Order: sequence, then C-alpha cells, then structure tokens
Amino acid sequence: MRKALDEAAKGRGRVEPNPMVGAVVVQEDRLIAVGHHQRFGGPHAEVLALEAAGDQARGATLYVTLEPCCHFGKTPPCTEAILRAGVARVVAAHRDPFPKVAGGGLARLREAGVEVAAGVGAAAAVDLNAPYLKRVLTGSPYVIAKWAMTLDGKTAAAGGDSRWISSPESRAEVHAVRGRVDGIVVGVGTVLADDPQLTARPPGLRSPTRIVMDSRGRTPLDSHLARTAREVATLIVVGAEAPSEAIDALRASGCEVLSLPEARRPHVDRLLSELGRRGMTNVLLEGGGVVLAAFFEIGAVDEVDVFIAPLIEGGDHARTAVRGVGRRLMSDSLRLQNVRRSLVADDVRIQGEVSHQWREHLDDRLTSCPGQVANPT
Amino acid sequence: MRKALDEAAKGRGRVEPNPMVGAVVVQEDRLIAVGHHQRFGGPHAEVLALEAAGDQARGATLYVTLEPCCHFGKTPPCTEAILRAGVARVVAAHRDPFPKVAGGGLARLREAGVEVAAGVGAAAAVDLNAPYLKRVLTGSPYVIAKWAMTLDGKTAAAGGDSRWISSPESRAEVHAVRGRVDGIVVGVGTVLADDPQLTARPPGLRSPTRIVMDSRGRTPLDSHLARTAREVATLIVVGAEAPSEAIDALRASGCEVLSLPEARRPHVDRLLSELGRRGMTNVLLEGGGVVLAAFFEIGAVDEVDVFIAPLIEGGDHARTAVRGVGRRLMSDSLRLQNVRRSLVADDVRIQGEVSHQWREHLDDRLTSCPGQVANPT
Repeated sequence: MRKALDEAAKGRGRVEPNPMVGAVVVQEDRLIAVGHHQRFGGPHAEVLALEAAGDQARGATLYVTLEPCCHFGKTPPCTEAILRAGVARVVAAHRDPFPKVAGGGLARLREAGVEVAAGVGAAAAVDLNAPYLKRVLTGSPYVIAKWAMTLDGKTAAAGGDSRWISSPESRAEVHAVRGRVDGIVVGVGTVLADDPQLTARPPGLRSPTRIVMDSRGRTPLDSHLARTAREVATLIVVGAEAPSEAIDALRASGCEVLSLPEARRPHVDRLLSELGRRGMTNVLLEGGGVVLAAFFEIGAVDEVDVFIAPLIEGGDHARTAVRGVGRRLMSDSLRLQNVRRSLVADDVRIQGEVSHQWREHLDDRLTSCPGQVANPT
Repeated sequence: MRKALDEAAKGRGRVEPNPMVGAVVVQEDRLIAVGHHQRFGGPHAEVLALEAAGDQARGATLYVTLEPCCHFGKTPPCTEAILRAGVARVVAAHRDPFPKVAGGGLARLREAGVEVAAGVGAAAAVDLNAPYLKRVLTGSPYVIAKWAMTLDGKTAAAGGDSRWISSPESRAEVHAVRGRVDGIVVGVGTVLADDPQLTARPPGLRSPTRIVMDSRGRTPLDSHLARTAREVATLIVVGAEAPSEAIDALRASGCEVLSLPEARRPHVDRLLSELGRRGMTNVLLEGGGVVLAAFFEIGAVDEVDVFIAPLIEGGDHARTAVRGVGRRLMSDSLRLQNVRRSLVADDVRIQGEVSHQWREHLDDRLTSCPGQVANPT
C-alpha cells in the first residue's frame, strides 16, 4: 500500500477535483504492475495498473488507495474492469465517501466473489486526499492559511510595509504551493497595501483563481489584479454595500464579481460553498490578518503554512498574522496537529493541521469493520 | 585548540565574571595534559594543565583559549608559571582585552624567550566568551532577550493571559538558562500580570538577581518577588516618580531599590552599567514587550532566544514580543546572525545574535598581526 500511496501522490495538482489514487497489482508477493490516476478525466489508477499487468492480473491482489468506483462518471466503473481482469482480492485503504460510491464499489466486488478488505494504510491515504475528502464531505474546499512573519511576530512593519519578510527561497516555496491550488484568497487591504500579482511564478500545474474579499468594492481598477483580469481568472467578492458603479467597472475590466449581500462582510462559509460548487479542491489563504481571523473564527482553516524570518521589527501597532477578536485565554488557543518543521534558507517553515469535525477519526469512519463493507445506503 | 575550547566551556556558569579558559599541553603532537578554569577565584587553566603535565611540560607547546594573564589578581600571574614550567611555545586563541593584560601576557612570554602566537580558533573563542568580552569592552553585561510566542505572533491572549504558551520542555530549557545567568530583568507589567517567581527550578549554578523595571514603584508587596526578597536577591529599579513610601515599603520587604531618577523611565544603559559594575556578566531579559522594545531600541540586546508554539491565538489587541515604536520599513528590521534552530517538544526554538559595534570583527581585532604581539599600551 505504501507503493500505491507513492504512486497516487504523483497526481497532485493534476487530478483535482478528483482524488489522487494509486494502484498496485501483486501476485504471490511479487509486484506485477503499478498505476496512478494521472489527470482529471483520464483513466483511473486501477484500470492503468490492470492494463499493465495484462494476464498476470488473474488471481492477483489489487492494492488501491481508495475504494474503486462503481458508477459511470468520466470513465466506466472500475469494479467491472477489476472483475474482467479476474483479480482475486482487492485491498482498499478506505471507502470513498463520494455519494455514488460510498461502499458500493467494495460491495459490488464482494457480491461478484472477490475477496475485499479496507483499512490498510487508511490514515496515510486520508492525509493524502484530505482536500478531496473535505470537499466531498462538506462541500467546501480545503483551506491552507499562509503567512510570513518576523521573529517578534510581525507581518508588516509599523509603517505598513511587508516586503520582504521571508527569504527568496521561502517565497519560491509559496509559489510552488500557489501552482497546485485552485484559488488564492486575500482581503482588499492586501490589494491596497501591496498590489500583489497572486500568480505562481514560475507557473505550476494550475493557474489559481485570484479571489479578493472586498465587501465595499474597493479593488482599484489600476491594480495588478484588475489590469490582468482577462489573462488570469479574478473573482471579487463584494457585499451589499458595494456601489453598483464599482461592480460594473470591475466587471468591465474583466473581473468576475460575486455578490454575497447577506451580511456586511461577505460570509466566509457562503464563499467556500460557492468555491466548492465550482470544483475548487484547494484554496490558499494569503491574508491579511483580518481575513485570516474571519476564516479561523468560523473554523474554515484546515492547514497553516508559516514562514518565520530571523528579523526583529518591533512596534506596538505593527500588524500580526491573525487579528480579529482572538481568544480570551491562552488555554483556549487553537493547537495544530501533525506539525512539520523545516528550514528554508534563513527561515523556519512550520506547517500544521487544524482538526475539525469533518476530519476527526475520518480514517476509522471510512474503514469501520475492516474487511466488512457497510451498506452504501 | 578545539580540545582547549571544549575544556574551557566546562566552566560555564562557574567562573563568571572571569572568562572561561581551557588549556592543553602538547609535546610532539602528543596530548600531555589538559586543564580548565573551574571556578571564580580558583586556579587558572594554564596552571592546572601545567601541574598535570609536570616535567613533561618542558619544551612543550601550550594551547590556551585566552592570552595568559601577567598580573596578580586572585591568583599569581600565569606567565610566570609558564616560564617556570619551561614551555617552549604558547599558542593563544586571542589576546585578553582586560586592561591589566591586553597583550602584556604574550609580550612578557616573548621577552622571556618563549615562542608565541595568537589567532588559532579565535572566532570560536570569541563566541564562547562573548559575555566576558562585552563586559570588559563596554562595562555592560551580555543581554539575552527571551520570549515565547504563538505561531501567529502573540505573547499573550487578548485577555492578557500568557500561561502557558510553550511546552513544559521549553520552559525547562528557560530554567536552565536562568540557572547560569546573573540577573533576570522584567518590566513591572509582567509582575502585575503574571506574578512570576523568576527563579531557576531546579536550581542552577547561579541564583540570578531578579530585576524589575518599575519606574513608578508599583511592585506589589504581596507579589512573589517581594515576599521572597529575603531569600532571593531582588532589585527594583525605580524612576524619580516613584513615591518614597513605596520605595520604603519595598526596602522593608527585603528588596533592594535602585533609583535612576534622570529619566521618566529608568535608563536602560544606566541600569546595564550598574549591573556590569556589580560583576554581572549575563542578564536574561524576559519581557514584556515594552521593556524588550526599550532594550532593542538602544541596541542593548546581544542575543535572542525565542520559543514558538504551534498555537493560533488571534486578536487585534493581543500582545506581541517587541512593542515600542518599531521600524518603519521591513528593510530596516534587525537581522539576526549565527541563527540556530532546534526542536523542543512541539515548539521550535530559534536563537540568534545581534551584531553590535563592540562585537564586529572582534576576533580579528584581538588577533591582529598573528604571531606578533601588539604593545599593551
């Protein structure tokens, strides 16, 4: 299954909004063939592995990082290809919660006489496809909050300037993340202060939509974003108080304007549902502190990615990464899980996950009764 | 010299305000004996190494991490012991800037016919004894600024609470630092908010004096510090505006009160001169943000020691590590040198040095003309 997971990860940035999937055909402890889902709309991992295995798939075990599908989507059901190949046993890391599968793939195989099991490598498989799983389970994309700060906790100098906190090497890491996500979210304050491009440079596998939280429609028409809106998708999210002239002008410049007028400040959850509906799997949240606080406050952040530079800035009024109301007590603060630490040039990079209800014990929930397949209803 | 430096470091926390010194006797590439300065007032490293070498010191080379002394202090001059032992060659890492030595030790040896050299391992030796060297060169102790913060840069929650940000393991590291310094400095705000003990637990080699920057004399008589002031030295630094009744009451509780009335807020440089005059070599600055800013603003911080916990706190008004006015531009910020990063339980510890004029090219300045000894005048 380790091998299958490694195969699956090769699809990162290429297959979304599909899950990354890897498959391995094993015959009497001998590796026969591997396959992975390579691009959205392309053949599934199981089919590629079985094709590569040919006749040797007969009587073999198929390890796959996700329950095989049993429905007609962009491709025919994998379950039928598995049965045709004569596989004797299928081991899936976990069930696919996608409503048209949801246990039905393993059930179909078992009914047809194939031995099935689930749960091997489930935790790692859930980690790999957390963004896909979140979107299937909640309808919202997976949100990665990113910031850079000084060693005394500042994300901008007292005068408002923030260029540059982190090293060129750290900024290159951020561009690599940008190149595999579907959207980059910032507040209009960041647009006004920094006039950012919000593109991946060099380009990555995806060209993320640039999304501005801009309740009052203040994104300047001469900003980088507005001026390049015909080349790079740009979504301005406004509230009821945005003047219609501003909306019209932004639309004329090539921006898409999404009006979420229910609240003074666009509802984060409404926005995320809309992004999920559009097929976005990963969204990178790049600040500033007010927007980050709005996402944290409703529990919408799934992962943080922080770069800390060895700088001392000082300043009572210098900005910090997450603003808003904040927690009253230190013991109320949000503690990250699965924290990873690395060095990038002179900076320290700290990445960690935020545990939410959709994620808790998800590997257990998707593999309960190992070897047994829950009724898909 | 590497071996001599390792020996020297064994004296850390035991020899101050003396420098740490190590010495190694080598005869034809063979290690004969080692020695290090073990405690303040005790015999010097050279003398211990030569005693251990006995007759084998004759004609040998003595490696020593600091120029041997040539004056009567707590012990007789090392130069005379070296001459008596018949050493042929002395290699010192660098000259001792202490006014009674300052090149005179190596000059005395050369005049007596010993071959002398300086500069081997000088950078490492300067790093080792930076606190000693700063005090000799500037009169002020070496200042280590320490703080713990969340991953979003907060040193306290929005409600003011700061217990606990870092892990028990990180707090144990802080107690280890406390146990080898001469003083711990905090602002009265920290005393009022946290009522800290400011002791090393378990006790270390030194029992640091607790120093409170308290211009208005607000340290409560029922605070931990005031209540234990007869057991642990406690220095309250007040300004002209402190009421005399408050000063009298603090003195009656066992606190020493130092009045620095020149400025509304006690002058940091005046305080440091006074601490240096008292023989303090290392001082740990534990905050809060206003006091840290006051020290940073006059360039009084030599090293920072920061613990970052994987917590998200949020809050526009939550405190950060260094407050004050701050730098206007990010490019004006203070960049640390010789940054070390380590993991302590779930926290990241980042330590780095601040370069100041007294330290710049110090190894070169103390070894200029390697092998030549500058005239001590």
